[in-house]
Amino acid sequence: MSDPGVKKISIGLLGYGTVGSSVYSLINDQAVEIARTTGASINIKKILVRDISVPRQDAPQELFTDDYEDIVDDPEINTIVELIGGIVPAFDYISSALEKGKSVVTANKQLLSQKGVYLFQLAREKGTQIRFEASVAGAIPVIKVLRESMVAADLTSVYGIVNGTTNFILTEMSRTGAKYQDALANAQEWGYAESDPTEDISGKDAAAKMAILASIAFHTAVELDDVACIGIEGISSLDISYARSLDMSVKLLGVAKLYDDRINVRVYPALLKKDHPLASVSGAYNAVFLKGNSIDEIMLSGPGAGGIETASAVVGDIVSIVARDKPGVLEDISAWRELEFYPDDDVVSKFYLRLEVNDEPGVLATIAQIFGKYGVSVESVIQQGRGAHAELVMVFHPVKEASFRKALDQIAGLPEVKSQPRPIRVEGDGYDQ
Amino acid sequence: MSDPGVKKISIGLLGYGTVGSSVYSLINDQAVEIARTTGASINIKKILVRDISVPRQDAPQELFTDDYEDIVDDPEINTIVELIGGIVPAFDYISSALEKGKSVVTANKQLLSQKGVYLFQLAREKGTQIRFEASVAGAIPVIKVLRESMVAADLTSVYGIVNGTTNFILTEMSRTGAKYQDALANAQEWGYAESDPTEDISGKDAAAKMAILASIAFHTAVELDDVACIGIEGISSLDISYARSLDMSVKLLGVAKLYDDRINVRVYPALLKKDHPLASVSGAYNAVFLKGNSIDEIMLSGPGAGGIETASAVVGDIVSIVARDKPGVLEDISAWRELEFYPDDDVVSKFYLRLEVNDEPGVLATIAQIFGKYGVSVESVIQQGRGAHAELVMVFHPVKEASFRKALDQIAGLPEVKSQPRPIRVEGDGYDQ
Repeated sequence: MSDPGVKKISIGLLGYGTVGSSVYSLINDQAVEIARTTGASINIKKILVRDISVPRQDAPQELFTDDYEDIVDDPEINTIVELIGGIVPAFDYISSALEKGKSVVTANKQLLSQKGVYLFQLAREKGTQIRFEASVAGAIPVIKVLRESMVAADLTSVYGIVNGTTNFILTEMSRTGAKYQDALANAQEWGYAESDPTEDISGKDAAAKMAILASIAFHTAVELDDVACIGIEGISSLDISYARSLDMSVKLLGVAKLYDDRINVRVYPALLKKDHPLASVSGAYNAVFLKGNSIDEIMLSGPGAGGIETASAVVGDIVSIVARDKPGVLEDISAWRELEFYPDDDVVSKFYLRLEVNDEPGVLATIAQIFGKYGVSVESVIQQGRGAHAELVMVFHPVKEASFRKALDQIAGLPEVKSQPRPIRVEGDGYDQ
Repeated sequence: MSDPGVKKISIGLLGYGTVGSSVYSLINDQAVEIARTTGASINIKKILVRDISVPRQDAPQELFTDDYEDIVDDPEINTIVELIGGIVPAFDYISSALEKGKSVVTANKQLLSQKGVYLFQLAREKGTQIRFEASVAGAIPVIKVLRESMVAADLTSVYGIVNGTTNFILTEMSRTGAKYQDALANAQEWGYAESDPTEDISGKDAAAKMAILASIAFHTAVELDDVACIGIEGISSLDISYARSLDMSVKLLGVAKLYDDRINVRVYPALLKKDHPLASVSGAYNAVFLKGNSIDEIMLSGPGAGGIETASAVVGDIVSIVARDKPGVLEDISAWRELEFYPDDDVVSKFYLRLEVNDEPGVLATIAQIFGKYGVSVESVIQQGRGAHAELVMVFHPVKEASFRKALDQIAGLPEVKSQPRPIRVEGDGYDQ
């Protein structure tokens, strides 16, 4: 190295599960390459685990500790990599690391989507950095691109598929015709879904990621609670097969958009035309679109979170810290805007709706009349007999959400309607995004 | 701003064509936003043009100069944005700017693919930076991602569609059945091809970009002359229609790959299965795949070079310079590896071949025998009568390029063969990349 002083990154690693042990081996395998390309020497000095008596592969036993003070008070350790997840105790750990001027790398989307603004500001005050590429879309460097390449892009929307579990389930349902419960069981068996999959299937995981993306894209504080979300629990194999007959796929989308200077961020399942680039993102893959006034449309895609991909993103963040000593703009929330939110009620969308109704004369007329009363205009209807019931599959012209919901509420109360109406948005038809 | 010292970026802009004037207006339109998010004030102080007597829109006349010394000797100007292209005089301009410790942003792929190593080293020595996001794939931030996010990814291949003009032409031929010449004329009419389109259609433009990408991905010097390239001039509408009948698309690919620690970088048209993600990249769009030992496969895609996209990439580079005062690893070519090249002859590929032959008995047998002699194994054959001639369309199992070429040379000399054999590689079948 021609640099006089070789920079030393000494890491305290919090957590040693799949990602933690991948980070450990990646840093060791790539140490020479990282030193060669960054001029810095990187080593993991201590690893926090709950129980140090458990013998662990790969890493020498003396690295492990169950006492966080042992790590955060070590003056040699200048970088904390937090991989334990959740709010408690991760929030306290990260806060105290930043307080002491240490850099932080984390994959913790829950924490960032709830306490991000506080942590950014703390990093700024202490002249240090917090990086979190691994919190969204695994090894796809969407955070870095948003933070550093898109300043002049004047972004107007960020949207895509940011949860691999639900995309795997929907892909399976579409590929095999499987029911939701069977596809979920399959995803669990393959390791693509947790034994408790609630975070993923409810859309909460995607909502946390969209809060983070929206905050960075629009330089304004968006928190988890600001993101309305609908999960995929209500998607039936009938919806998937109707979608196919309409030449569409069902995907769980995260959408963050500016409407004039107001923000709307949401997560919901949507029907997408088969030729939409997101329709072909299958299995556990993720894909994010960036659109702005100075860029037409950029897509980043790749595998969602896997152990090695997430680890690779974490190591990329460590390298970015080496490259940049001072806090960046992200940490300076005083430079953020305070944009208002655009109400969900005012968003104009196309909808698809499948309804079970009594198979008797006049039902369609009654329903159509209610939609008409609220100014909701039908684009197409299929009616199909299924024994005593009939199934109505309707697609509507773009309509304000509030009007559509009012019509639906009234229709849900009709005695002829036998199922809870669960509309699905139709996207990518040109009028939106 | 909470920063005590506001950083001032004072720019000398070289060239005021489509991209130059877009950079000028983008910086002016976004000045407040850029200042807010970077804490730096950015202004364009002087603009170099050939003839200052021509009145120009947007920019005040007093900014223009036809004397480069006027810019490079201005002590206030700390950043040169070079948008004139070509080697002469851009090379001298950039060299003298770096000599004086000024940062450089350029979109000049020809220059970088021929003099990049020298310029990187010069920047390093002078403690400054050279950035060139706009030289490859427009607003898609592939250079930044390669330079900064992929250090731990242990990349093994970088490949994709990096020339919008040829992709537009091939898309048109496929969509409308147009002949090559008509599709080219159409691309020229739409502004997607230059009046002299040689650089693009010969594959040279893509080769320059691949040399840059390969250099950064593998940290080794790859220059334009190291990249063998085949253009699209030989692609006939018959090839396109046969491709369709094989459920494939024809794309001009740039491929940079490591074979154990040896590099192979090439540009060639290829047949891709319709479900390959690159097959659906259409029109003037670009897409780049990154693959490594620690990342499965990441794709970045978006519009190729347009005035506003290229300008957005240039401004992104300026912002990156603000964020990072010192030269990065890229500039330190002493940290680069010196990888050997893997010979084209040894690359194993599948091939497609269309041949016009005399429609007489025994021709197929003669040809098949020659392929057999060189160990080239046929996967499928279609023979079709076309008047006095017959057309043979053959697809081969993966074979070493040298063996295939030897067989082809012998076949080209047969009196029964009426057309120059122009094989096209078949990619994405699982055995490659």
